[in-house]
Amino acid sequence: MNLNEYLSDRRAMIDSALNKFLPSIDARPQRLHEAIRYSVLAPGKRLRPILALASAEAVNGNCELVLPTACALECIHVFSLIHDDLPCMDDDDYRRGRLTNHKVYGEAMAMLAGDALLTLAFELIADNVATVAPDRVVMALKMISNATGTWGMVGGQVIDIESEGKSIEFETLKYIHAHKTGALLTASSVAGALLVGGDDDQIEALTQYGKSIGLAFQIADDILDIIGDQDKIGKPVGSDEGNDKATYPKFFGLDGSRQMAHNEVQNALDAIANLSHAADPLRAIAGYIVDREL
Amino acid sequence: MNLNEYLSDRRAMIDSALNKFLPSIDARPQRLHEAIRYSVLAPGKRLRPILALASAEAVNGNCELVLPTACALECIHVFSLIHDDLPCMDDDDYRRGRLTNHKVYGEAMAMLAGDALLTLAFELIADNVATVAPDRVVMALKMISNATGTWGMVGGQVIDIESEGKSIEFETLKYIHAHKTGALLTASSVAGALLVGGDDDQIEALTQYGKSIGLAFQIADDILDIIGDQDKIGKPVGSDEGNDKATYPKFFGLDGSRQMAHNEVQNALDAIANLSHAADPLRAIAGYIVDREL
Repeated sequence: MNLNEYLSDRRAMIDSALNKFLPSIDARPQRLHEAIRYSVLAPGKRLRPILALASAEAVNGNCELVLPTACALECIHVFSLIHDDLPCMDDDDYRRGRLTNHKVYGEAMAMLAGDALLTLAFELIADNVATVAPDRVVMALKMISNATGTWGMVGGQVIDIESEGKSIEFETLKYIHAHKTGALLTASSVAGALLVGGDDDQIEALTQYGKSIGLAFQIADDILDIIGDQDKIGKPVGSDEGNDKATYPKFFGLDGSRQMAHNEVQNALDAIANLSHAADPLRAIAGYIVDREL
Repeated sequence: MNLNEYLSDRRAMIDSALNKFLPSIDARPQRLHEAIRYSVLAPGKRLRPILALASAEAVNGNCELVLPTACALECIHVFSLIHDDLPCMDDDDYRRGRLTNHKVYGEAMAMLAGDALLTLAFELIADNVATVAPDRVVMALKMISNATGTWGMVGGQVIDIESEGKSIEFETLKYIHAHKTGALLTASSVAGALLVGGDDDQIEALTQYGKSIGLAFQIADDILDIIGDQDKIGKPVGSDEGNDKATYPKFFGLDGSRQMAHNEVQNALDAIANLSHAADPLRAIAGYIVDREL
């Protein structure tokens, strides 16, 4: 299969659905809807919704049936970016080369745009009952809410903040990675199959797949952070003692980390070895997650 | 019926369920869970969850079946209080005589506690599938998420913020009241009956009931704001030109507003006139909403 064609086709499908599902700027409150659209419709990889579509396909389901939940996963991701960028959090002015939401719309509106997006995500999951049996919708709701809140993304973010400027154990770094980014990537990898009726073995295989690509993704990000810094500041990796952020390369070096990321990709492939060729997009995405930047 | 006994019994039932459903302070991240419990378990009227229980009873359902969703409604309410109190919003230091969440736990933790609570609410709704049919759970999810996000509470909050310091039309004041507080009170009045299998006529009656008590509640709050101010500052109502916040009394005077609140209570009673004596708690609550403070 041609992965680039696949990704670009699926991205177009998601972008079109997002545009349809997001509140219109003609509806009140207009400025809130502008703020929501500004951040959600900014160009992005759409990794989470694409995983959800590929997950439905992997068990021979029709991926279009799960579009509302796929878009919900992107809404949750963007909600987390908007809140993370706020002054009381990371205080970032730019994201993907554009001003962050609060720099354009103000802090109050940015916070409320995040709140509205998180809520919209759950409304979209409810709307998926138009194409999917309600017991499966509730299972997806349970899994996605669990991966988003204190047992997942938000919990990981809290431990990340609490760890800033501290020397942390590897166990804590693993916790942060598994929760802050891993949980929602895993939920995305499972949600599609769950909605179209995947059986227990398939769900278990996709859960393992999701955990492995989630970890590979985060190790790759850690590596990119350092390679990016090195390019920018022109000094060798490891000499920057001021950067006390715990990362995989800090614990295992660059080469060790690269190896671990590739091992996780292999684990992901092994986990779904019993799935048919319908899972080939998921297989290709596993490799892409590491190769995109290493 | 003895309303005070009823309310105190139901409050105890809710508080005990909340204590069970909220994440333990022994679980990681502990400080987030402390922050969540600090705000949710502060003494409160528990009006929204009590309405949900009474709504289930009103159609002869067992109110204990809907406890997870009833608690979800309280989580959504408290999430909105925590975020509203933040410096980028109302910047309040105290609520109910205690320091606000961010004054105790910091802004980042307060924002994340709100995010986690909003997410937990939807997880609790999903958990309600243990006692309620999944199609009804999805219907409740749809209704509650719609009442919470941009089409409800968050949307009303945005228009409220945008109206600060401006002279607004009565139509805008109605929009703010109906969305910021009315939508979630209406959803609470309907959710219980919806979950236990209420029919279309019952749902429609309870929706009208909810809209009327929601409006009565807000008019009563507007009146209390002014009576409270008057007691405190010792000058007649209406002389305070510095207070440019739009309220019902600004448009209709104190007596006119009182009359409108009582009319809405009557509308609420009329709406559920066809329900049996099982709806008596809802009838008593309608009166209580206005009498509690006028």
